[in-house]
Amino acid sequence: MFVQEMTPDQCFALLAQEHVARLACTHAGKAYVVPIQYVLAGHRIYSFSMLGQKILWMRQNPEVCVQADRVEDAHHWKSVVANGHYHEVPDIKGHHDGHMRAWSLLQSRTNWWEPGGYQPRPHAADGKPVFFFIEVHEVTGRMAAESGE
Amino acid sequence: MFVQEMTPDQCFALLAQEHVARLACTHAGKAYVVPIQYVLAGHRIYSFSMLGQKILWMRQNPEVCVQADRVEDAHHWKSVVANGHYHEVPDIKGHHDGHMRAWSLLQSRTNWWEPGGYQPRPHAADGKPVFFFIEVHEVTGRMAAESGE
Repeated sequence: MFVQEMTPDQCFALLAQEHVARLACTHAGKAYVVPIQYVLAGHRIYSFSMLGQKILWMRQNPEVCVQADRVEDAHHWKSVVANGHYHEVPDIKGHHDGHMRAWSLLQSRTNWWEPGGYQPRPHAADGKPVFFFIEVHEVTGRMAAESGE
Repeated sequence: MFVQEMTPDQCFALLAQEHVARLACTHAGKAYVVPIQYVLAGHRIYSFSMLGQKILWMRQNPEVCVQADRVEDAHHWKSVVANGHYHEVPDIKGHHDGHMRAWSLLQSRTNWWEPGGYQPRPHAADGKPVFFFIEVHEVTGRMAAESGE
Protein backbone atom coordinates (compact mmCIF):
# COMPACT_ATOMS: atom_id res chain seq x y z
CA MET A 1 0.00 0.00 0.00
CA PHE A 2 1.23 3.45 -0.96
CA VAL A 3 0.13 6.47 1.03
CA GLN A 4 0.55 9.75 -0.77
CA GLU A 5 -0.30 13.40 -0.24
CA MET A 6 -3.30 14.81 -2.06
CA THR A 7 -3.22 18.12 -3.91
CA PRO A 8 -5.61 20.89 -2.78
CA ASP A 9 -7.73 20.24 -5.91
CA GLN A 10 -7.98 16.55 -5.01
CA CYS A 11 -8.92 17.51 -1.44
CA PHE A 12 -11.73 19.85 -2.55
CA ALA A 13 -12.95 17.21 -5.02
CA LEU A 14 -13.32 14.77 -2.12
CA LEU A 15 -15.06 17.40 0.03
CA ALA A 16 -17.47 18.08 -2.86
CA GLN A 17 -18.20 14.38 -3.27
CA GLU A 18 -18.87 13.65 0.39
CA HIS A 19 -21.67 15.04 2.53
CA VAL A 20 -20.84 13.77 6.00
CA ALA A 21 -17.77 15.04 7.84
CA ARG A 22 -16.51 15.52 11.36
CA LEU A 23 -16.25 19.02 12.73
CA ALA A 24 -13.84 19.77 15.57
CA CYS A 25 -13.85 22.97 17.56
CA THR A 26 -12.08 24.07 20.69
CA HIS A 27 -12.77 26.19 23.73
CA ALA A 28 -10.76 26.76 26.89
CA GLY A 29 -8.18 24.13 25.97
CA LYS A 30 -10.73 21.40 25.29
CA ALA A 31 -11.61 19.78 22.00
CA TYR A 32 -15.03 18.70 20.76
CA VAL A 33 -15.81 16.69 17.65
CA VAL A 34 -19.18 15.79 16.14
CA PRO A 35 -20.46 14.56 12.79
CA ILE A 36 -22.05 17.08 10.45
CA GLN A 37 -23.87 16.83 7.18
CA TYR A 38 -22.69 19.50 4.78
CA VAL A 39 -22.58 20.79 1.24
CA LEU A 40 -19.44 22.26 -0.30
CA ALA A 41 -19.79 25.44 -2.38
CA GLY A 42 -16.50 26.83 -3.62
CA HIS A 43 -14.21 26.75 -0.62
CA ARG A 44 -17.10 26.95 1.84
CA ILE A 45 -18.49 24.06 3.83
CA TYR A 46 -22.17 24.84 4.49
CA SER A 47 -23.98 23.16 7.34
CA PHE A 48 -26.52 23.80 10.06
CA SER A 49 -27.21 22.73 13.60
CA MET A 50 -29.62 23.27 16.42
CA LEU A 51 -28.14 25.59 19.01
CA GLY A 52 -25.83 23.60 21.26
CA GLN A 53 -22.26 23.14 22.43
CA LYS A 54 -20.59 23.31 19.03
CA ILE A 55 -22.39 26.50 17.98
CA LEU A 56 -21.63 28.15 21.33
CA TRP A 57 -17.98 27.13 21.10
CA MET A 58 -17.58 28.22 17.47
CA ARG A 59 -19.11 31.60 18.28
CA GLN A 60 -16.38 32.05 20.88
CA ASN A 61 -13.57 30.55 18.80
CA PRO A 62 -14.24 30.39 15.05
CA GLU A 63 -11.06 28.46 14.19
CA VAL A 64 -12.27 24.95 13.40
CA CYS A 65 -11.16 21.77 11.67
CA VAL A 66 -13.21 19.51 9.42
CA GLN A 67 -12.28 15.96 8.41
CA ALA A 68 -13.92 13.91 5.67
CA ASP A 69 -12.99 10.63 4.08
CA ARG A 70 -13.98 7.97 1.61
CA VAL A 71 -12.96 4.45 2.56
CA GLU A 72 -13.39 1.61 0.08
CA ASP A 73 -11.35 -0.83 2.10
CA ALA A 74 -8.25 -0.99 4.26
CA HIS A 75 -6.00 -0.37 1.27
CA HIS A 76 -8.03 2.14 -0.72
CA TRP A 77 -9.01 5.30 1.08
CA LYS A 78 -8.79 9.07 1.03
CA SER A 79 -8.91 11.40 4.00
CA VAL A 80 -8.95 15.18 4.01
CA VAL A 81 -8.43 17.64 6.86
CA ALA A 82 -9.58 21.22 6.32
CA ASN A 83 -8.83 24.14 8.59
CA GLY A 84 -11.22 27.03 8.37
CA HIS A 85 -13.10 29.88 9.93
CA TYR A 86 -16.69 29.68 11.21
CA HIS A 87 -19.20 32.17 9.84
CA GLU A 88 -22.82 32.22 10.91
CA VAL A 89 -25.54 32.97 8.36
CA PRO A 90 -28.32 34.43 10.48
CA ASP A 91 -31.84 34.97 9.20
CA ILE A 92 -31.84 38.68 9.93
CA LYS A 93 -32.08 41.83 7.88
CA GLY A 94 -29.04 42.18 5.67
CA HIS A 95 -28.29 38.45 5.84
CA HIS A 96 -31.57 37.02 4.62
CA ASP A 97 -30.35 36.29 1.07
CA GLY A 98 -27.27 34.46 2.37
CA HIS A 99 -29.43 32.55 4.83
CA MET A 100 -31.80 31.41 2.11
CA ARG A 101 -28.88 30.43 -0.16
CA ALA A 102 -27.51 28.26 2.64
CA TRP A 103 -30.94 26.80 3.29
CA SER A 104 -31.43 26.06 -0.40
CA LEU A 105 -28.03 24.38 -0.70
CA LEU A 106 -28.60 22.25 2.37
CA GLN A 107 -32.16 21.40 1.43
CA SER A 108 -30.78 19.68 -1.68
CA ARG A 109 -29.39 16.98 0.60
CA THR A 110 -32.13 14.89 2.08
CA ASN A 111 -30.41 12.17 4.11
CA TRP A 112 -30.08 14.10 7.31
CA TRP A 113 -28.74 11.97 10.06
CA GLU A 114 -26.64 14.34 12.09
CA PRO A 115 -27.05 13.55 15.77
CA GLY A 116 -28.83 16.48 17.27
CA GLY A 117 -29.65 17.92 13.88
CA TYR A 118 -33.02 17.62 12.28
CA GLN A 119 -34.57 18.54 8.99
CA PRO A 120 -34.14 22.30 8.97
CA ARG A 121 -37.43 24.13 9.12
CA PRO A 122 -37.06 27.89 9.00
CA HIS A 123 -39.44 29.54 11.43
CA ALA A 124 -40.28 26.25 13.14
CA ALA A 125 -41.93 26.72 16.49
CA ASP A 126 -39.47 24.50 18.36
CA GLY A 127 -36.39 26.55 17.72
CA LYS A 128 -34.68 27.48 14.49
CA PRO A 129 -31.53 25.79 13.27
CA VAL A 130 -28.37 27.84 13.02
CA PHE A 131 -26.98 28.00 9.50
CA PHE A 132 -23.26 28.46 9.08
CA PHE A 133 -20.34 27.89 6.77
CA ILE A 134 -16.68 27.14 7.29
CA GLU A 135 -14.45 29.20 5.01
CA VAL A 136 -11.61 26.77 4.32
CA HIS A 137 -8.18 28.39 4.33
CA GLU A 138 -6.00 25.28 4.43
CA VAL A 139 -6.60 21.76 3.23
CA THR A 140 -4.44 18.65 3.29
CA GLY A 141 -5.17 15.06 2.42
CA ARG A 142 -3.73 11.61 2.09
CA MET A 143 -4.80 8.71 -0.01
CA ALA A 144 -3.83 5.09 -0.14
CA ALA A 145 -3.75 2.71 -3.06
CA GLU A 146 -2.19 -0.62 -3.81
CA SER A 147 1.32 -0.57 -5.15
CA GLY A 148 1.33 0.06 -8.90
CA GLU A 149 -2.18 1.61 -9.11
CA MET B 1 -37.57 9.34 13.87
CA PHE B 2 -36.85 9.54 17.57
CA VAL B 3 -33.47 10.77 18.78
CA GLN B 4 -32.65 9.78 22.31
CA GLU B 5 -29.74 10.03 24.72
CA MET B 6 -27.64 6.91 25.23
CA THR B 7 -26.61 5.70 28.66
CA PRO B 8 -22.88 5.45 29.46
CA ASP B 9 -23.13 1.64 29.18
CA GLN B 10 -24.66 1.97 25.71
CA CYS B 11 -21.92 4.43 24.75
CA PHE B 12 -19.11 2.09 25.85
CA ALA B 13 -20.85 -0.81 24.08
CA LEU B 14 -20.71 1.17 20.84
CA LEU B 15 -17.08 2.12 21.42
CA ALA B 16 -16.26 -1.56 22.02
CA GLN B 17 -18.04 -2.59 18.83
CA GLU B 18 -16.41 -0.01 16.56
CA HIS B 19 -12.73 0.24 15.67
CA VAL B 20 -12.53 3.46 13.70
CA ALA B 21 -13.14 6.80 15.39
CA ARG B 22 -12.20 10.45 15.01
CA LEU B 23 -9.79 11.94 17.48
CA ALA B 24 -9.80 15.70 18.06
CA CYS B 25 -7.11 17.56 19.92
CA THR B 26 -6.34 21.21 20.44
CA HIS B 27 -3.32 23.46 20.73
CA ALA B 28 -3.03 27.24 20.88
CA GLY B 29 -6.72 27.75 20.21
CA LYS B 30 -6.80 25.55 17.12
CA ALA B 31 -8.55 22.24 16.63
CA TYR B 32 -7.33 19.20 14.74
CA VAL B 33 -9.29 16.06 13.91
CA VAL B 34 -8.11 12.85 12.28
CA PRO B 35 -9.39 9.29 11.97
CA ILE B 36 -7.87 6.64 14.21
CA GLN B 37 -8.15 2.91 14.44
CA TYR B 38 -8.49 1.81 18.03
CA VAL B 39 -9.38 -0.93 20.46
CA LEU B 40 -11.41 -0.29 23.60
CA ALA B 41 -10.26 -1.97 26.83
CA GLY B 42 -12.28 -1.01 29.89
CA HIS B 43 -12.61 2.75 29.67
CA ARG B 44 -9.42 3.11 27.67
CA ILE B 45 -9.24 3.76 23.94
CA TYR B 46 -5.94 2.25 22.74
CA SER B 47 -4.38 3.43 19.51
CA PHE B 48 -1.06 4.23 17.89
CA SER B 49 0.35 6.67 15.41
CA MET B 50 3.55 7.64 13.74
CA LEU B 51 4.98 10.77 15.30
CA GLY B 52 3.20 13.78 13.84
CA GLN B 53 0.98 16.75 14.58
CA LYS B 54 -1.59 14.94 16.72
CA ILE B 55 1.03 13.28 18.95
CA LEU B 56 2.91 16.56 19.36
CA TRP B 57 -0.31 18.40 20.21
CA MET B 58 -1.56 15.71 22.64
CA ARG B 59 1.79 15.76 24.43
CA GLN B 60 1.29 19.47 25.01
CA ASN B 61 -2.43 19.27 25.79
CA PRO B 62 -3.67 15.80 26.77
CA GLU B 63 -7.38 16.78 26.90
CA VAL B 64 -8.88 15.19 23.80
CA CYS B 65 -12.22 14.18 22.35
CA VAL B 66 -13.08 11.00 20.44
CA GLN B 67 -16.19 10.47 18.31
CA ALA B 68 -17.42 7.14 16.96
CA ASP B 69 -20.62 6.14 15.27
CA ARG B 70 -22.53 3.36 13.59
CA VAL B 71 -24.85 4.44 10.82
CA GLU B 72 -27.24 1.95 9.26
CA ASP B 73 -29.21 4.58 7.39
CA ALA B 74 -30.52 8.10 7.81
CA HIS B 75 -33.03 6.97 10.41
CA HIS B 76 -31.02 4.37 12.34
CA TRP B 77 -27.74 5.56 13.78
CA LYS B 78 -25.78 5.89 16.99
CA SER B 79 -23.07 8.43 17.70
CA VAL B 80 -20.86 8.70 20.78
CA VAL B 81 -18.59 11.51 21.96
CA ALA B 82 -15.97 10.66 24.59
CA ASN B 83 -13.84 13.16 26.45
CA GLY B 84 -10.62 11.83 27.85
CA HIS B 85 -6.99 12.23 28.77
CA TYR B 86 -4.07 11.22 26.56
CA HIS B 87 -1.49 8.83 28.02
CA GLU B 88 1.53 7.65 26.09
CA VAL B 89 2.73 4.06 26.47
CA PRO B 90 6.44 4.32 25.65
CA ASP B 91 8.61 1.29 25.05
CA ILE B 92 11.06 2.16 27.79
CA LYS B 93 12.13 0.56 31.02
CA GLY B 94 9.26 0.53 33.47
CA HIS B 95 6.67 0.83 30.70
CA HIS B 96 7.59 -2.17 28.57
CA ASP B 97 4.78 -4.40 29.84
CA GLY B 98 2.17 -1.72 29.20
CA HIS B 99 3.65 -1.09 25.77
CA MET B 100 3.45 -4.74 24.83
CA ARG B 101 -0.11 -4.99 26.15
CA ALA B 102 -1.08 -2.07 23.93
CA TRP B 103 0.75 -3.62 20.99
CA SER B 104 -0.94 -6.97 21.57
CA LEU B 105 -4.40 -5.38 21.78
CA LEU B 106 -3.88 -3.37 18.63
CA GLN B 107 -2.32 -6.24 16.74
CA SER B 108 -5.59 -8.12 17.14
CA ARG B 109 -7.12 -5.64 14.67
CA THR B 110 -5.76 -6.14 11.22
CA ASN B 111 -7.64 -3.69 8.99
CA TRP B 112 -5.37 -0.75 9.49
CA TRP B 113 -6.29 2.13 7.30
CA GLU B 114 -5.53 5.17 9.39
CA PRO B 115 -4.07 7.88 7.19
CA GLY B 116 -0.49 8.29 8.23
CA GLY B 117 -0.59 5.16 10.33
CA TYR B 118 0.91 1.91 9.22
CA GLN B 119 1.05 -1.60 10.51
CA PRO B 120 2.92 -1.11 13.77
CA ARG B 121 6.30 -2.74 13.76
CA PRO B 122 8.12 -2.34 17.05
CA HIS B 123 11.78 -1.65 16.48
CA ALA B 124 11.26 -0.95 12.78
CA ALA B 125 14.13 0.88 11.20
CA ASP B 126 11.97 3.65 9.74
CA GLY B 127 10.71 5.06 13.00
CA LYS B 128 8.65 3.47 15.72
CA PRO B 129 4.96 4.15 16.15
CA VAL B 130 3.82 5.90 19.30
CA PHE B 131 1.40 3.82 21.35
CA PHE B 132 -1.12 5.63 23.51
CA PHE B 133 -4.48 5.36 25.19
CA ILE B 134 -7.22 7.85 25.96
CA GLU B 135 -8.60 7.39 29.47
CA VAL B 136 -12.26 8.26 28.98
CA HIS B 137 -13.71 10.34 31.81
CA GLU B 138 -16.96 11.46 30.18
CA VAL B 139 -19.08 9.88 27.49
CA THR B 140 -22.33 10.93 25.86
CA GLY B 141 -24.26 9.54 22.94
CA ARG B 142 -27.37 9.84 20.87
CA MET B 143 -29.21 7.29 18.83
CA ALA B 144 -32.01 7.48 16.34
CA ALA B 145 -34.69 4.95 15.57
CA GLU B 146 -38.02 4.95 13.82
CA SER B 147 -41.01 5.86 15.91
CA GLY B 148 -42.32 2.85 17.82
CA GLU B 149 -39.11 0.75 17.63
